[in-house]
Amino acid sequence: MLHLYTAKGTCGRATLIALEEAWVGYELTVIDFSKEEQKTPEYLAINPKGRVPALVTDEGVLTETPALLGYVAATHPEAELLPTEPFARAAADEMMAHLCANVHPAHAHIRRGHRWADDPAAIAELTRKGPEVVESTMRWVEDKLVGEWVAGARYSLADAYLFTVANWMEGDGIDMDTLPRIRDHRARVADRPATKRALEKEAG
Amino acid sequence: MLHLYTAKGTCGRATLIALEEAWVGYELTVIDFSKEEQKTPEYLAINPKGRVPALVTDEGVLTETPALLGYVAATHPEAELLPTEPFARAAADEMMAHLCANVHPAHAHIRRGHRWADDPAAIAELTRKGPEVVESTMRWVEDKLVGEWVAGARYSLADAYLFTVANWMEGDGIDMDTLPRIRDHRARVADRPATKRALEKEAG
Ligand SMILES: N[C@@H](CCC(=O)N[C@@H](CS)C(=O)NCC(=O)O)C(=O)O
Ligand SMILES: N[C@@H](CCC(=O)N[C@@H](CS)C(=O)NCC(=O)O)C(=O)O
Repeated sequence: MLHLYTAKGTCGRATLIALEEAWVGYELTVIDFSKEEQKTPEYLAINPKGRVPALVTDEGVLTETPALLGYVAATHPEAELLPTEPFARAAADEMMAHLCANVHPAHAHIRRGHRWADDPAAIAELTRKGPEVVESTMRWVEDKLVGEWVAGARYSLADAYLFTVANWMEGDGIDMDTLPRIRDHRARVADRPATKRALEKEAG
Repeated sequence: MLHLYTAKGTCGRATLIALEEAWVGYELTVIDFSKEEQKTPEYLAINPKGRVPALVTDEGVLTETPALLGYVAATHPEAELLPTEPFARAAADEMMAHLCANVHPAHAHIRRGHRWADDPAAIAELTRKGPEVVESTMRWVEDKLVGEWVAGARYSLADAYLFTVANWMEGDGIDMDTLPRIRDHRARVADRPATKRALEKEAG
């Protein structure tokens, strides 16, 4: 059985939503960042990166949100969680990679600047500039989001991932009224039964 | 016809190799970063992020290396460029996401710290700590790389991407003898005819 490790409010939420959308049996462990549980020897044996999410499968452990979302979709084809037509799939992949490589690192600079700097003044500078970088990476998403969903006419797991990241914006000091398409998209994803179940399970 | 925009020595090389592996007709534009061609109005109309790679297709423009590699593989299934079995595909996706989201941003901090900081002292601190962060993200790759290729028994585009990023290591101050599996993997990918053709085309 699949076993997902996540923590509250993190990017692991996207994979939790995916598992609920796939309507699959799975085990869930919500680790506690306030107790630094991502740094325990037990957790590092699962994911040596000391991050969430990690998905334990019968064939081994997987990390990185886009890989987890792709795996859940590929192992549950009947749920149609990612497009199969190449261009639509690439549009989903593009959004997932943009969130993972551009938006998420920008967000991490606000509170986890110590990953890239030791000097406290430099860390403070990363925190200060962070919201501006987050805003510019989300502006690209806003401009891209012309339809109801990220990749073609149907909901996909790229939408679950965007929803997850969009929930960080107020905490990052971004006024969601300046990103109205993302704001409305977030409300659409929030309305889905699988999203509601995932949020309940995450809350415990 | 596909049209790839890249620049010398950049992550766009992975997609250039992919097109050569697929043995497909394509147009190539190698833009010149020393002339800031990624910031011209003409190029920003293609990719508003002001980055390479960008792949112009008949259905629209795609950005983000993992999406481009997935698209080339999906549109040329006969070339078998990415695994189709879900776990092996997820292992390829995991590596591509790790390179895109963890290794590449770490590398960018060394010379492009201005993305995340305005203060010159903070930018200098990002440059100073950069090699240590690059090393730690590549250590994960080194530990993961137990076989000949990234994802299962066959070469895949995740290998082309790792090769591309591994070529930055000396410039980032990393001694490749401390990453012997990646060093040997890089030599294996360098030996492929498609890699050689891609490097020739990139050099112009
Ligand atoms: N690229 C990874 C990012 C994983 C990541 O950074 N997760 C954060 C939570 S959103 C984390 O575990 N942080 C804990 C820490 O830095 O100690 C992914 O997309 O899965
Ligand atoms: N996440 C993007 C990264 C693209 C990127 O940052 N490309 C670099 C070259 S490796 C670039 O275009 N830099 C130009 C600049 O920052 O001005 C991808 O994987 O395609």
